[in-house]
Amino acid sequence: MIEVQAYAAQGPKTPLTPWSFQRRDVGADDVLIDIAFCGVCHSDIHQARDEWGGSKFPMVPGHEIVGHVAEVGSRVDRFKVGDRAGVGCFVDSCRVCANCQADLEQFCVKGMSGTYNGFEQDKKTPTFGGYSTRIVVDQKYVLRLPDALDLAGVAPLLCAGITTWSPLRHWNVGAGQKVGVVGLGGLGHMGVKFASAFGAKTWVITTSPGKADDAARLGAVGVVVSKDADDLAKHAGSFDFLLSTISAPYDLGAYLGLLKVDGTMVTVGAPERPLDLHLFSLIMGRKSLAGSLIGGIKETQEMLDYCGEHGIVSDVEVIPADRINEAYERMLRSDVRYRFSIDIGSLRR
Amino acid sequence: MIEVQAYAAQGPKTPLTPWSFQRRDVGADDVLIDIAFCGVCHSDIHQARDEWGGSKFPMVPGHEIVGHVAEVGSRVDRFKVGDRAGVGCFVDSCRVCANCQADLEQFCVKGMSGTYNGFEQDKKTPTFGGYSTRIVVDQKYVLRLPDALDLAGVAPLLCAGITTWSPLRHWNVGAGQKVGVVGLGGLGHMGVKFASAFGAKTWVITTSPGKADDAARLGAVGVVVSKDADDLAKHAGSFDFLLSTISAPYDLGAYLGLLKVDGTMVTVGAPERPLDLHLFSLIMGRKSLAGSLIGGIKETQEMLDYCGEHGIVSDVEVIPADRINEAYERMLRSDVRYRFSIDIGSLRR
Repeated sequence: MIEVQAYAAQGPKTPLTPWSFQRRDVGADDVLIDIAFCGVCHSDIHQARDEWGGSKFPMVPGHEIVGHVAEVGSRVDRFKVGDRAGVGCFVDSCRVCANCQADLEQFCVKGMSGTYNGFEQDKKTPTFGGYSTRIVVDQKYVLRLPDALDLAGVAPLLCAGITTWSPLRHWNVGAGQKVGVVGLGGLGHMGVKFASAFGAKTWVITTSPGKADDAARLGAVGVVVSKDADDLAKHAGSFDFLLSTISAPYDLGAYLGLLKVDGTMVTVGAPERPLDLHLFSLIMGRKSLAGSLIGGIKETQEMLDYCGEHGIVSDVEVIPADRINEAYERMLRSDVRYRFSIDIGSLRR
Repeated sequence: MIEVQAYAAQGPKTPLTPWSFQRRDVGADDVLIDIAFCGVCHSDIHQARDEWGGSKFPMVPGHEIVGHVAEVGSRVDRFKVGDRAGVGCFVDSCRVCANCQADLEQFCVKGMSGTYNGFEQDKKTPTFGGYSTRIVVDQKYVLRLPDALDLAGVAPLLCAGITTWSPLRHWNVGAGQKVGVVGLGGLGHMGVKFASAFGAKTWVITTSPGKADDAARLGAVGVVVSKDADDLAKHAGSFDFLLSTISAPYDLGAYLGLLKVDGTMVTVGAPERPLDLHLFSLIMGRKSLAGSLIGGIKETQEMLDYCGEHGIVSDVEVIPADRINEAYERMLRSDVRYRFSIDIGSLRR
């Protein structure tokens, strides 16, 4: 067994604290990764605090994992010791269902193995995430990382990156389109970077007019202030595509009204409670409302390769592991631009 | 001016009664149609009773109009006297906006001229519909009708037909797909005929198990009873496409749960009040929910031509005009299989 240092929640109402545990030995198909950085996702907070229900404790959160290969199993052919390597939101899936076969492991019919707060495919061995020094993962579920990029900023690509990349690619967002990214946080700032890199005229739709400078720096052509009725009216019926990253309750109709005929709004954020939807807001203009969930291994690799070619990383604030509880509080106040990345080296000192 | 006999509502709470009025003379681009049959749409009831607000009285309902050309203007080149001709849900639009130019006149930016309870493009001359002996319409908004088909059954194609045809074509429904048509009424029975004609394995999703025989006769392979949780569970995650024709409130999540990954549900019916939508029901499986509204002139003509080639008409019960009030009551009880078609000859006797 492999000894690991970590930060873990021991229960739903406790702060995260240092914890050590053991991971499985490196199997024939496994890669052992010495973790360098782990991004901090909003869903880490929801799960650590059991806000979605069903949380399993102790819990080591973290599914935006980057580091270096420290050991490989006898059948591993995609990685060698010293390579950069990453792990995203899942570490396994059934591999045989139609969705797994279609490179959509996130929709595995038998259920993917979440990187933490989940189970291995045996449905009984718990998984532990990236707020930890080392992780052992089957090579099929390990991503290659571009050498040129800053690793701390690469980490959030494994969730925030692929979550926004996947719908923008699936719905063919690109040049000649007017695209809106709703919400400018960890997900939204990656959505703006990608949509503008793909050539779309990209707008940030936000409650905060103060984010205009940041929006421009990230590649947006402008900002629509969603609380300003005049601003909404000015842009009514003008967007080809909207990507919503917000998980607070909101007025779906107000956003659908921004779409032109045949426009599509895709959400990657979900408020806990249902929203009101008047179906006329879809019928008038043949509009579509859709959802998207992270992405499969194949497209995550494509995203990482693209980021390497185009020099794209997440904007991060690097913190030592012992500041994770403070980071959670700041995230709840939207006080981070735009993602915390834990320096896992701090766990080894 | 042209004298016309009609059935009209004189106010929101009055039964329809005989009425005569005058239509414009035949202009250079106009076609005068002697109406033979007019289908009865649910929206006729809503508007005659002012249930959507803003109704204009007197009102002559009817937007599923078929008949024969009685006179043509000097510039008319698409029709000659004696030709069959049809008129659907609109009789004009601005003709210059991006949507009109894209053959999507139903989404005309300046507003289409509804066939009744609307205004001509001058925005002040009221329009009157097909519960009447004659109508004058610019030839651009008149449809050619196949000669081989029973005219009484052709009438509902102009609304119920195109409303279901358009989304099935737009979303490329066809062979190899499992398709569900939700609701088996005027719209739904056309949806079943079209989807099965296109080669899809078509299911009727209904609250009424008693419609199984009709569903099979119309081309469906089976029925899913939407009030039967076991039946819903049996079909969970199995449909490629759902077409909802219902306008009563319903549980969106239950239907979205029937879709497989990347499945699409399109609604052509809209409850008056908003429905609850939990965005997770779209995110899990990258599903889409969309709307569709009738169809443009070009695709309506394509639909009619297809119906001529494939012998497709609506299942109708022909009634004389003086039974229209009784027909409305029966429609509210779903007591019609599947569309009333008014024999307009009864207005001339």
